[in-house]
Amino acid sequence: MKISMYQASAPRFVHTLRNLSTILDKAEAYAEAKKIDPAVPGGLRLIADMFPLARQVQIACDTAKGAVARLAGLEIHKHEDTEKTLPELKARIAKTLDFIQSVPAAKIDGSEEREVVMKMRSGEVKFNGLQYLMGHAYPNFYFHCTTAYNILRANGVELGKRDFIGTP
Amino acid sequence: MKISMYQASAPRFVHTLRNLSTILDKAEAYAEAKKIDPAVPGGLRLIADMFPLARQVQIACDTAKGAVARLAGLEIHKHEDTEKTLPELKARIAKTLDFIQSVPAAKIDGSEEREVVMKMRSGEVKFNGLQYLMGHAYPNFYFHCTTAYNILRANGVELGKRDFIGTP
Repeated sequence: MKISMYQASAPRFVHTLRNLSTILDKAEAYAEAKKIDPAVPGGLRLIADMFPLARQVQIACDTAKGAVARLAGLEIHKHEDTEKTLPELKARIAKTLDFIQSVPAAKIDGSEEREVVMKMRSGEVKFNGLQYLMGHAYPNFYFHCTTAYNILRANGVELGKRDFIGTP
Repeated sequence: MKISMYQASAPRFVHTLRNLSTILDKAEAYAEAKKIDPAVPGGLRLIADMFPLARQVQIACDTAKGAVARLAGLEIHKHEDTEKTLPELKARIAKTLDFIQSVPAAKIDGSEEREVVMKMRSGEVKFNGLQYLMGHAYPNFYFHCTTAYNILRANGVELGKRDFIGTP
């Protein structure tokens, strides 16, 4: 037995995105308890020249959506980056989950060698599916999910790593 | 073709740990330029009740070391958590890399179904190898590497996500 590309991708993104949504639930409860303006949390940052919470969640979603679509050889539907509040960001995650869960495992399996072309600021970069998933999509996805967590944690929301990892 | 457990583990940990070491190089250059006491960076935190930089790096190292050892069915050698300065933390990463790179691929391959028992605060948790790698080791590893990055980034070290991702 070996790992299939499906096992290594869609269910892992789904798991962590669900945890991220629960983290946003806790942030919402915190903001309500402290009577924080609903427009505030999405704009929180670790430092002025880093992306705010809303953008971290949007990029995490797009990284997961793009990875699943590219590996499956499907068109990538654009989700507009209009979310400002925590309920809107949770809806963005839900929309991303709907797409990921709509892709059959058979579409993703066998994509280890599929060519994936990414448009980067530095130009086009070509990966094979495995290298793209493990070396690009995964670290990017976890980077933005963790940064979303860290922004909320550093701003006082009571979170623990267990909220991030969930039950594997 | 499918993914082997080796492909999905050791080389990915090695890649990100090397990037983390380069991030610490940049932090060291920053601390030198600003004449910051070498004892300071390791103690930086995002918030008072989160682990400081040194502990984030130690846990990232131990997560990678433990994952490779457990999947390979090898004894886990304890690395004492004594590091305080950036050069010491880089040496900890180098020691971890030495161990990971000493494990032959053949020891790790085929570990998808190997039972992995983790002692958690909540008691013993049993995983199979695949679930352990994808659902526990990966998110933990990336969580602590990203948090190390975020601590330095939030404290003024000039870093970009490219330093974290490297060249996949």
